[in-house]
Amino acid sequence: MNMVDIIQKKKEGRALSDDEIRWFVDGYVSESIPDYQISALLMAIYFKGLSKEETFCLTDAMRHSGDTVDLSPVSGIKVDKHSTGGVGDKTTLVVAPLAAALGVPIAKMSGRGLGFTGGTVDKMESIPGFRTSLESSEFLDQVNTIGMSVIGQTAHITPADKKLYALRDVTATVDSFGLIASSIMSKKLASGSDAIVLDVKVGNGAFMENQHDAEILAELMVEIGNNAGRRTVAVITEMGQPLGKAVGNSLEVIEAIETLKGKGPADITELAERLSGIMIYLGGKAKTPEEGLEMAKEALADGRGLAKLREFISAQGGNPKVIEDYTLFPQHSVQKEIYAESSGYVTGIEAGKIGLASQHTGAGRATKEEDVDLSAGICLSKKVGDKVERGQLLATLYGNDLFKLENAAITAAAAFKIEEKNVEKPKLIKKIIGL
Amino acid sequence: MNMVDIIQKKKEGRALSDDEIRWFVDGYVSESIPDYQISALLMAIYFKGLSKEETFCLTDAMRHSGDTVDLSPVSGIKVDKHSTGGVGDKTTLVVAPLAAALGVPIAKMSGRGLGFTGGTVDKMESIPGFRTSLESSEFLDQVNTIGMSVIGQTAHITPADKKLYALRDVTATVDSFGLIASSIMSKKLASGSDAIVLDVKVGNGAFMENQHDAEILAELMVEIGNNAGRRTVAVITEMGQPLGKAVGNSLEVIEAIETLKGKGPADITELAERLSGIMIYLGGKAKTPEEGLEMAKEALADGRGLAKLREFISAQGGNPKVIEDYTLFPQHSVQKEIYAESSGYVTGIEAGKIGLASQHTGAGRATKEEDVDLSAGICLSKKVGDKVERGQLLATLYGNDLFKLENAAITAAAAFKIEEKNVEKPKLIKKIIGL
Repeated sequence: MNMVDIIQKKKEGRALSDDEIRWFVDGYVSESIPDYQISALLMAIYFKGLSKEETFCLTDAMRHSGDTVDLSPVSGIKVDKHSTGGVGDKTTLVVAPLAAALGVPIAKMSGRGLGFTGGTVDKMESIPGFRTSLESSEFLDQVNTIGMSVIGQTAHITPADKKLYALRDVTATVDSFGLIASSIMSKKLASGSDAIVLDVKVGNGAFMENQHDAEILAELMVEIGNNAGRRTVAVITEMGQPLGKAVGNSLEVIEAIETLKGKGPADITELAERLSGIMIYLGGKAKTPEEGLEMAKEALADGRGLAKLREFISAQGGNPKVIEDYTLFPQHSVQKEIYAESSGYVTGIEAGKIGLASQHTGAGRATKEEDVDLSAGICLSKKVGDKVERGQLLATLYGNDLFKLENAAITAAAAFKIEEKNVEKPKLIKKIIGL
Repeated sequence: MNMVDIIQKKKEGRALSDDEIRWFVDGYVSESIPDYQISALLMAIYFKGLSKEETFCLTDAMRHSGDTVDLSPVSGIKVDKHSTGGVGDKTTLVVAPLAAALGVPIAKMSGRGLGFTGGTVDKMESIPGFRTSLESSEFLDQVNTIGMSVIGQTAHITPADKKLYALRDVTATVDSFGLIASSIMSKKLASGSDAIVLDVKVGNGAFMENQHDAEILAELMVEIGNNAGRRTVAVITEMGQPLGKAVGNSLEVIEAIETLKGKGPADITELAERLSGIMIYLGGKAKTPEEGLEMAKEALADGRGLAKLREFISAQGGNPKVIEDYTLFPQHSVQKEIYAESSGYVTGIEAGKIGLASQHTGAGRATKEEDVDLSAGICLSKKVGDKVERGQLLATLYGNDLFKLENAAITAAAAFKIEEKNVEKPKLIKKIIGL
């Protein structure tokens, strides 16, 4: 096989064969095919697309490019949950304990983040003592014992995806449905769960800016999952404004705890209950998604979710007292408030700008090598649809560098739109695909 | 400036600014921009094209990426000639002496070839003693003294084009009008002549397979040349069958000599006279291209062209006795004949296949490191339109490795199409652009 022929074939819009796809993925990982040929192919894929069959094959090739996780030592139907990434998305920290509390085994590997905030792993590390790196046996034992574990991704999962993603990032070839879907799904399939719930975000703070694109991506991922024998459901959710009120690392863990205490913002509560409900259904613990939803609501209301979170924190070496005492989290040394410059209604809070502001507080990282400030971030005092008076608090920025906060505040302030006439609150859950 | 933004911009079909083009060309040559970003950009350019302004700018940036040749010490209007490359194209060796014999200074740098045969430089090196590498002062003095010199390209001309071409070759991004035109014209403009005649080949043995594409490319190159203040004319010529009857290195030099003796094949004679005529006109030595053509015909008929070739060979250290004694050229040790398997008319000789067969005899190189066998190649006994009887000689392959020749003969034999009904002889000169 010859890489130039493969690039030429895709350039002409012809479908690559299974053998060709596996050959270039293997060759790229083993470094027998250079970056510059792969980046030309990626750009040709951007323009000519991938057929379903090609996408299935690319996903499979990336999935098997490194280690795959064998969850068979865990009994029950293991259900994974993945979010395409949004601002203030701490859902995993609510959903996983709720589903686990109802007997759905959660054996989840999560990433560190680039951008707005850290990833779930960074967030959990804001809990003093919490270990995100467990031996495989420890990880599986914990799921069998307490029903859940969340750890950082091991180095050997889908190396092909890691290499391809890094290359796409520097060659303007990120935004291709087939490449996005295969990247996400290769990791999910390699992670070993039996069923997968995908939270596909749509809006200015998300990768997919309009619902049409989000649906295409969601449908493709559901097909990839089902084709690989994993029951897959995608939920398309609003990411026009941040999810909840907290954006940051420890700030989001605290909001997740508040949510499990029944005191969380309405949107994060609604989304967590809905996603958990679907996971409970897919995990075989409810007859319908609706029954799953009711069970999730009960587990949240009666404290079983919070109890499971406490067990989980303890099991991974974290200090469970953080649940009662938020001062045990890393503390900020400086803060900066943003006030409304006019009266009216908050008609928009651009999630993208809040995300950027959060990154500027120190909560996110721009490059893999940077550390995140676990105490930094933003807390919104208002959400879309809220009435506001001139001079009222809109948001507070936290961190350890006043200069950074002052810069971040300019960006955050620009995210708010205040108008005389109110708008309808945006619908959080826009569509469910695959149920 | 940021390379990802530049790739993204082109990917969206927007025109790059002059600054952006110069920045990425400079960055690529200085190795601050990696191959993998340039190849992604090249693929985006393949799909989205380059505007005229972008093409002019890219040409200029590549032209000035290394040394440029100053031909001002040579008096008169210097005229260059370039062929986009075809099978059996030895035109330079006929055209340059004819134009020089009529007072048009020819100060030409030529390349070594990849593919079918060597380039003009390789061909000339089949003349014993001939030096293709002269000091700059020697080169210019020779043009002032005898009116012509042809040498190998120096290493420092258009390094950006060299790097980009090498990358395009391995990333399936060769076939883009803007990239082809800017590549050719950057070299021509850097080479310093005042006027340029382009021989754009069309047909299965050429880079442009149909006339429509050849015209687009030709018009674009003419515009680039004129925009840069160099009078530029393009002649679109047939390359469905090989040009002349000889394909190889010494074989083609011998055919060029025969042509200057008035005994060459009709097609090569016609093309050489026509191209020389245009060069004589552009060089200010004829009032019209038609007058130039008549002057070229006379100089061929009365032996002035041959005399100039003799002077030229002597001036560059070659043995001029080769003109009378072809046994002074490198000699083949083996040969292999191809005979007609049926009677009828030769209705086609696929130039591409003959070129490939020539390469297989050893006359061409597949990689820059390979040596060419200067004695090897193919001589056709029949051309398109010729009557042929079963068992008659179609072609003879020459070289020094019988095994190679036997393989090459299979390919060469497949190039011939013999049918009962004759076809019209293809028109050699299809269109002239820029006169």
